[in-house]
Amino acid sequence: MDDPKETGRIEAFSDGVFAVAITLLVLNIQVPSPLPPDNNLIRSLFRQWPVYLAFLTSFATIGIMWINHHRLYTHIKRSDNTLMVLNLLLLLIIIFIPFPTALLAQYIFDPNEHQAAAFYSGVFCVMAICFNLLWRYASHENRLLARDADQHAVKAITNQYMFGPLLYLVTFGVAWISGPACIALNLLLAVFFALPGKQLAKQGEGENEAA
Amino acid sequence: MDDPKETGRIEAFSDGVFAVAITLLVLNIQVPSPLPPDNNLIRSLFRQWPVYLAFLTSFATIGIMWINHHRLYTHIKRSDNTLMVLNLLLLLIIIFIPFPTALLAQYIFDPNEHQAAAFYSGVFCVMAICFNLLWRYASHENRLLARDADQHAVKAITNQYMFGPLLYLVTFGVAWISGPACIALNLLLAVFFALPGKQLAKQGEGENEAA
Amino acid sequence: MDDPKETGRIEAFSDGVFAVAITLLVLNIQVPSPLPPDNNLIRSLFRQWPVYLAFLTSFATIGIMWINHHRLYTHIKRSDNTLMVLNLLLLLIIIFIPFPTALLAQYIFDPNEHQAAAFYSGVFCVMAICFNLLWRYASHENRLLARDADQHAVKAITNQYMFGPLLYLVTFGVAWISGPACIALNLLLAVFFALPGKQLAKQGEGENEAA
Amino acid sequence: MDDPKETGRIEAFSDGVFAVAITLLVLNIQVPSPLPPDNNLIRSLFRQWPVYLAFLTSFATIGIMWINHHRLYTHIKRSDNTLMVLNLLLLLIIIFIPFPTALLAQYIFDPNEHQAAAFYSGVFCVMAICFNLLWRYASHENRLLARDADQHAVKAITNQYMFGPLLYLVTFGVAWISGPACIALNLLLAVFFALPGKQLAKQGEGENEAA
Repeated sequence: MDDPKETGRIEAFSDGVFAVAITLLVLNIQVPSPLPPDNNLIRSLFRQWPVYLAFLTSFATIGIMWINHHRLYTHIKRSDNTLMVLNLLLLLIIIFIPFPTALLAQYIFDPNEHQAAAFYSGVFCVMAICFNLLWRYASHENRLLARDADQHAVKAITNQYMFGPLLYLVTFGVAWISGPACIALNLLLAVFFALPGKQLAKQGEGENEAA
Repeated sequence: MDDPKETGRIEAFSDGVFAVAITLLVLNIQVPSPLPPDNNLIRSLFRQWPVYLAFLTSFATIGIMWINHHRLYTHIKRSDNTLMVLNLLLLLIIIFIPFPTALLAQYIFDPNEHQAAAFYSGVFCVMAICFNLLWRYASHENRLLARDADQHAVKAITNQYMFGPLLYLVTFGVAWISGPACIALNLLLAVFFALPGKQLAKQGEGENEAA
Repeated sequence: MDDPKETGRIEAFSDGVFAVAITLLVLNIQVPSPLPPDNNLIRSLFRQWPVYLAFLTSFATIGIMWINHHRLYTHIKRSDNTLMVLNLLLLLIIIFIPFPTALLAQYIFDPNEHQAAAFYSGVFCVMAICFNLLWRYASHENRLLARDADQHAVKAITNQYMFGPLLYLVTFGVAWISGPACIALNLLLAVFFALPGKQLAKQGEGENEAA
Repeated sequence: MDDPKETGRIEAFSDGVFAVAITLLVLNIQVPSPLPPDNNLIRSLFRQWPVYLAFLTSFATIGIMWINHHRLYTHIKRSDNTLMVLNLLLLLIIIFIPFPTALLAQYIFDPNEHQAAAFYSGVFCVMAICFNLLWRYASHENRLLARDADQHAVKAITNQYMFGPLLYLVTFGVAWISGPACIALNLLLAVFFALPGKQLAKQGEGENEAA
């Protein structure tokens, strides 16, 4: 792998990991078995709403990060050993996400709520740092990008990603105030990263331009 | 992703998610461990038949929805940001299906049977709505279809899908009468969606036409 | 899907399902937690050898069936709706295999040993029938094969597969005599199916012929 | 499969298995539920650090082995029946890894620590042997390599892999002295195998040569 290779199999492996990690999230949702005195299943289902909220936020985050990974590899056209290791580092965090999700779901109504939410945001912050490392290594002096890479798009991604760790640091801070607010902010951030960097400038125009 | 891209990697990721979700269904089937007085394993296995029925119905539904997803992407040839998000929304529901399946399997012999079956049908109804959203977005004025898409086939899919949410609403209603009847109807609906829209008109003819 | 399509995405989805099902087998192997008085971990690990044997047999069976699936699709070049449904049926059995495996591992030292082993063999027998259905549908009058399919190879597969259900019926019978013997026979059968039909005639020659 | 075939689908299936096995590792990390008297979640999380260490080492090992698998198949260009079986054998070990990982995590603070660590290293040793078998079968007299395979690179891989089983034998020995030291050495070995054989000679040079 010390010669740049095409990135097809990295993408296939990463797709597999993203797909498994995102699907394993459902294992955190347990069938409510000991029913309360009024024995109403629907009410029991509603009562565990924070489990669904954490499921949704983690799903959105992993899903959007998959879109971002996809987006990076439309520009990254070659691979080397360092890229493979940085890619593995990113996948390590992605794979880990079901754990803080389970933790948050279990402790959201507990005095430990703040610690669980801070841990959750902390993991996302590390994930954002890994995305920056991967992208900066690949895009530095066009190292692994297509030779004719759109410099405008490359720059836009770099700028957008720079804010990632800072924004997740903010949600980390909010965790010490309110757990649910922290989750809600993390959901919003996922939406922010769903927007391609370019679109942040000229939002909405691009959508139909190739139609 | 604000430029239309080819859909190869969306399909690969979706295939992965469908494959994992459908396979995780087996984790809901538990080895019957505390054997009854007559200590007969086969009888214990038979006694949990609703677990197998729910497994089968969810398997058929996810499997057929994968065939449908496949079918849509023989027409959808380009991708944009909105399509990716709508696709993620659909996958969110697919991933969630093992949960209502487990719920139904556990409560089918319980007074809460009706609520569990209604929840199960409700999730399928939302899934059918997501399929409509995805397809209508992609096919509206041929937005993301192949330029030479077969307008007859496109129309046939649109017409067939329109009935999806309504039909699942019927099974939702039946849930309040009988749990097993509701599961059986959901199985029938999976078979309905296995038939391509075109075939609903001129059934059976098409099968060998390219042979 | 009523027009024959290429089989790429069926293969990709099937590969995903095989890969997940084969990997989930490991979840059946539990860490031996309550250590016996002599508190020796290695001995505890040895004591659960039937769990490893069942794991190995199921691994070999799913793995070899993947090779066979692969082999069929080197001949099957087109797809239609019926093929997709038959393929799903086969995947249903593959996905189900972790359940009889867990059952067998748990009951191998129990008086219910015979019933568990018979259930295990029964599932494999159904799997062999599904393989026959898929292959016979696809190969009947060359329906979905490559137009220039090697008729000799096609015939060899048909002949080999014909014996599958019968052979698994034998292991089903053996289950009522001895559980471990039944598992061992199933392992042998996996090896039998690892050999391509052609090689059964002129075994060993073919291996280097293209070198 | 007795004719050499291209290796695309073996790689796809292997990628799937690697991806699922690496992601299942997270299921070993349990939410710490019974909190100690001081009821501090962060402290409870820290207390289970060996679980994270074992998770990290197994992740690194599977991830790096995936890179190595990838690297081998840049040279292996054809497939035959024996290769498929050897590849399955390798996947058997990869799939099994979550089990010794869980074992090690649970027994690291126990008098059985040495046995658990030795078992862990032993599995890695068998994995290294399987890699040698696969590579030696494929590369022997260029059997399944590209006809124009870079003989220098082929030789470098052969030499590097030869040391694998021996090095894991060393970590097996260290297990009887200290469990944590054994895990740390296994992590180092993963890093060793991350370096391509060629780079071990002229380290660092190759990285930018194609830029």
